[in-house]
Amino acid sequence: MAAAKGEESKKKLLKAAEKLFAEKGFQSTKVSEIVAHAGLTQAAFYLYFASKEEILQHLLSEFEQQLGNFGDAGKKAGDFYPGRVQPYVKDQFVQLFSFLGKNPSLTKIALHHGKHGDRIREKIVAQIAGNMKENQNKGIVKKEIDPQIASEAIVAVTERLIDRYLWNGEKTKEELGAQAAQIFLHGILNES
Amino acid sequence: MAAAKGEESKKKLLKAAEKLFAEKGFQSTKVSEIVAHAGLTQAAFYLYFASKEEILQHLLSEFEQQLGNFGDAGKKAGDFYPGRVQPYVKDQFVQLFSFLGKNPSLTKIALHHGKHGDRIREKIVAQIAGNMKENQNKGIVKKEIDPQIASEAIVAVTERLIDRYLWNGEKTKEELGAQAAQIFLHGILNES
Repeated sequence: MAAAKGEESKKKLLKAAEKLFAEKGFQSTKVSEIVAHAGLTQAAFYLYFASKEEILQHLLSEFEQQLGNFGDAGKKAGDFYPGRVQPYVKDQFVQLFSFLGKNPSLTKIALHHGKHGDRIREKIVAQIAGNMKENQNKGIVKKEIDPQIASEAIVAVTERLIDRYLWNGEKTKEELGAQAAQIFLHGILNES
Repeated sequence: MAAAKGEESKKKLLKAAEKLFAEKGFQSTKVSEIVAHAGLTQAAFYLYFASKEEILQHLLSEFEQQLGNFGDAGKKAGDFYPGRVQPYVKDQFVQLFSFLGKNPSLTKIALHHGKHGDRIREKIVAQIAGNMKENQNKGIVKKEIDPQIASEAIVAVTERLIDRYLWNGEKTKEELGAQAAQIFLHGILNES
């Protein structure tokens, strides 16, 4: 019972921190504001987190882990039958936009938080590039493609499109996923 | 002779402002530093520019004008014979990377200067999208493409690639131009 209540409090603190970091930025947010938003005491905060930095790290690693699943979509793509790769990758784009659309605060914190953001971005780019290189060896990705540059391009476009069209509701995740697939897959995949 | 000397001083001030705005940011740069860098007096500055804001505007509109030529590459592309569009657009990408590579300070100021940057970006995106729409009507651009999203994607990728690969010399303008063309043109153009 006490453990369950503890988990509940921890979740409330994470939720409050996520909201405040996204709205006001990490620097401008005080621990006292996080606990006030969570309806808890300062003492409760330090029961679960050593510092404001630690709660940020917690949020970022959670986000990174979830995002990592999409970065590995390319790995799985290599197992599909020729002709089935493209619909699969298109669907993955839609799911990626869906995930980022549902987590605007976390995405903003993760990608705009200076060095943290750069590190997460670099990791995702490296992950996509690694899978792309493998798929190039399998003949799924065109040999003319530089996997590093193409991965950087995919990440840059995803970031721009969520920022420009998804969060304001101007376009749906389906529209953006379909367009991203249309723009990239013919140039990158061999089968199309 | 006096007019020629005046033009010379004005150029020196613009050059110094460009360097300092890029290095220190617009807010942190003082007019006194600009004139010191240019080897001129404060009085000379106010002979040519009413304020620090005005010298920034001057730099930005110069940059915008030059960049506008590339934004209109798509317009000209519509006049090429089928089969010649792709090499032309690829060459335009190389020239764009060449221009941005030669003007890192101005590019940084223009694109990272908050509202100014957003306005310039929006203008370029609108320009590319307009030309793309025309080319869609001519059958050069695929009908599945959303010109607005595709233009936003092209601008996002260009910005990311100069920032990540061009300015640090990791890739050449030819490599980046060829990759940008490879990534985008098959998905966007009908002929490829």
